[in-house]
Amino acid sequence: MKKLFAEFFGTFWLVFGGCGSAIFAAGYPDLGIGFVGVSLAFGLTVLTMAYAVGHISGGHFNPAVSLGLWAGGKFEGKDLVGYIIAQLVGAVAAAGLLYLIISGKSDFVDVGGFAANGYNDLSPDGFSMTSALIAEFILTMFFLLIILGSTNARAPKGFAPIAIGLGLTLIHLISIPITNTSVNPARSTSQALFAVNSEYMSQLWLFWVAPIAGAIVAGLIHKAMFDKD
Amino acid sequence: MKKLFAEFFGTFWLVFGGCGSAIFAAGYPDLGIGFVGVSLAFGLTVLTMAYAVGHISGGHFNPAVSLGLWAGGKFEGKDLVGYIIAQLVGAVAAAGLLYLIISGKSDFVDVGGFAANGYNDLSPDGFSMTSALIAEFILTMFFLLIILGSTNARAPKGFAPIAIGLGLTLIHLISIPITNTSVNPARSTSQALFAVNSEYMSQLWLFWVAPIAGAIVAGLIHKAMFDKD
Amino acid sequence: MKKLFAEFFGTFWLVFGGCGSAIFAAGYPDLGIGFVGVSLAFGLTVLTMAYAVGHISGGHFNPAVSLGLWAGGKFEGKDLVGYIIAQLVGAVAAAGLLYLIISGKSDFVDVGGFAANGYNDLSPDGFSMTSALIAEFILTMFFLLIILGSTNARAPKGFAPIAIGLGLTLIHLISIPITNTSVNPARSTSQALFAVNSEYMSQLWLFWVAPIAGAIVAGLIHKAMFDKD
Amino acid sequence: MKKLFAEFFGTFWLVFGGCGSAIFAAGYPDLGIGFVGVSLAFGLTVLTMAYAVGHISGGHFNPAVSLGLWAGGKFEGKDLVGYIIAQLVGAVAAAGLLYLIISGKSDFVDVGGFAANGYNDLSPDGFSMTSALIAEFILTMFFLLIILGSTNARAPKGFAPIAIGLGLTLIHLISIPITNTSVNPARSTSQALFAVNSEYMSQLWLFWVAPIAGAIVAGLIHKAMFDKD
Repeated sequence: MKKLFAEFFGTFWLVFGGCGSAIFAAGYPDLGIGFVGVSLAFGLTVLTMAYAVGHISGGHFNPAVSLGLWAGGKFEGKDLVGYIIAQLVGAVAAAGLLYLIISGKSDFVDVGGFAANGYNDLSPDGFSMTSALIAEFILTMFFLLIILGSTNARAPKGFAPIAIGLGLTLIHLISIPITNTSVNPARSTSQALFAVNSEYMSQLWLFWVAPIAGAIVAGLIHKAMFDKD
Repeated sequence: MKKLFAEFFGTFWLVFGGCGSAIFAAGYPDLGIGFVGVSLAFGLTVLTMAYAVGHISGGHFNPAVSLGLWAGGKFEGKDLVGYIIAQLVGAVAAAGLLYLIISGKSDFVDVGGFAANGYNDLSPDGFSMTSALIAEFILTMFFLLIILGSTNARAPKGFAPIAIGLGLTLIHLISIPITNTSVNPARSTSQALFAVNSEYMSQLWLFWVAPIAGAIVAGLIHKAMFDKD
Repeated sequence: MKKLFAEFFGTFWLVFGGCGSAIFAAGYPDLGIGFVGVSLAFGLTVLTMAYAVGHISGGHFNPAVSLGLWAGGKFEGKDLVGYIIAQLVGAVAAAGLLYLIISGKSDFVDVGGFAANGYNDLSPDGFSMTSALIAEFILTMFFLLIILGSTNARAPKGFAPIAIGLGLTLIHLISIPITNTSVNPARSTSQALFAVNSEYMSQLWLFWVAPIAGAIVAGLIHKAMFDKD
Repeated sequence: MKKLFAEFFGTFWLVFGGCGSAIFAAGYPDLGIGFVGVSLAFGLTVLTMAYAVGHISGGHFNPAVSLGLWAGGKFEGKDLVGYIIAQLVGAVAAAGLLYLIISGKSDFVDVGGFAANGYNDLSPDGFSMTSALIAEFILTMFFLLIILGSTNARAPKGFAPIAIGLGLTLIHLISIPITNTSVNPARSTSQALFAVNSEYMSQLWLFWVAPIAGAIVAGLIHKAMFDKD
């Protein structure tokens, strides 16, 4: 139970901090934090909560991560459902609170696309569905290779949250123009639910399929190739 | 006594570096450091002084942090008053020195709002009092969850200042548009005292109430849920 | 064999993340990540994969690094050819995938210079061949001094990937205007292959010669001066 | 002797990387790295070389640091002259090489102020001599408090280069508008020598006096207050 609360708080923070930084900064075209700031924010949500509660739950905060660790033999299948539910509840709770805060703005009209993920017309810079699929697959695969490698028994102790958090920053630096960056089905679901444009909901499948496929492939690669002596 | 000096220097540095970076950079709309730079500066004041004097005083530099650690059972109540006074004196001394330096600018007129915190008309992007209350409450709550979690006996040793400092950077990346980001009553008080617009003073209560409430809730959550085996 | 796969994945990630962040962000002149974002991305590719697979292959991801470590007596000559081939294959595979993703953009015409390196007319800010030679030589020399020093037995344990990764970020902050920053022959080769302008190919020699010369000099300096007691 | 070479290389890198990033990026008003990038570059020169050669020479790279450590009882007076000469030689050699590289630019005219430090008319944002004195004094004092504190026997092991390097980044985020940020007499001297405007040379005294005074005060504070049990 303690583990599920840790996953709830961690995923809440990921969405509140990562998506929140994007949503609030949008009001400041010139003074805002830009893509670098949003990339940093996403990464720091994971870095901070991995140090705070990583020793309790492992610090997944992402259904694709839980599934990739399971495929890599580092997480028990019986805990999967509980973790994923806790992650989804945390993500949606954070999105709801973001909505509450942003609706208190003096010039508030609607939340537009919130910080939802998309392709084709909904890609920030017009990338196709195929480009989005490849990018989300490859990026989540490397995210899991970083997680599995940096938490391996032979890696230096205590540094994994830095590698993993800044790895998520890097992933955003690469791919915000492509899909607004998901690599996390819970994050994508929470935003699609609040986006005014319902089209985001119909594209949500990709942000479950591609990250999970990439994560599982990484788990299998790590188990076959890097985990043994 | 040594502890109080450590808190004095640490809070001085937080205000001098964090608020100072915002105040001096304001003269450079195009070349300045932007919200990302200010966010980084605030976080690095805490990261640096936590490594420098954290082993002496614990490195709070913030009345809400002291109260949250006390609620979480990690700080003795009898030290609270001394710590908070040292933090306030350090913050106000830094603000005074910032005033002295900025008044030496060739085109100096007045300090405007300094780097004060506010809501409604004084919110950088027009957020309401309710939005400000929620944001400051949630952000300080997570700040304390990060502090309590990363300094827990089971967390990796030595990394807490990185998690805590970059956590404060993250908090600024999220909320500068909302309240100019407080999560620290000493920081807010020091700036309201020097702001030309006296309205900031009348809004100061929120930046004591919300951060302290959030910090205490986090202390109780951590004690109840994450601190035991 | 496991080592060669680690080098393949690491160099793939360096090119996919570093060059990718530059290529995709180019579509966003105002909202993009700028040179700071690209510099951060390159550094984080190395930081993350050095934590993930550094304990397997040493985490070179760069022919100049392998040669510099060999000159410094830290890497066996018999492994050089395998490592360099794995690095080149990883870099070219990543460039191919970047091409595939960018060609799925709705307004795609051609890839221009991709993220290739150049001097004279192909220098981002018009630096001469001599300036490029000096810059690439000095920067790779210091990159290797950082690598050899931070992985030395007397340096603090576990921190080398931070020093090395952020060292690569620093090198990009300095020299993107000069040569678009190489210090890595595999990275340069992969981009020249896909650049539409064939001139980049004819300048590729410099991005083999200067980095490798700088790396070997650093290896000899470290061995002669800093490696003994 | 080995120590003096370490100080030579470290200070060379500080000037080449920190000042170099400012000088080369100046050609790119829109795409350049801005004050955040320059701040990051200065900090990373120290972070990287402190990990690379800190275990050899202590990693001062700055006459004010050597003097502050001496005042704090952490560095022997008999080594002062050798260290300061090695630092000055390294800084001037780096400035010369920067001049050589920048003069190879196709549109090169002159180096303007290079990356020199100044006050009054030579302050980037018009700050007075008094403001400059106060700022350089306070910032160097805190720089030394960070150095002395984070390398203290009771501080976490191995993290000092992160605290010190990012502390220098923070110092630049605060004070580039004031003096272009010195806190390092070797850095200031190397740039004043190459600046076309000879006025910088006549202001150089301040960037020896203020940083050294601040450093010595910090050494005394640390020795009196924080160094004992």
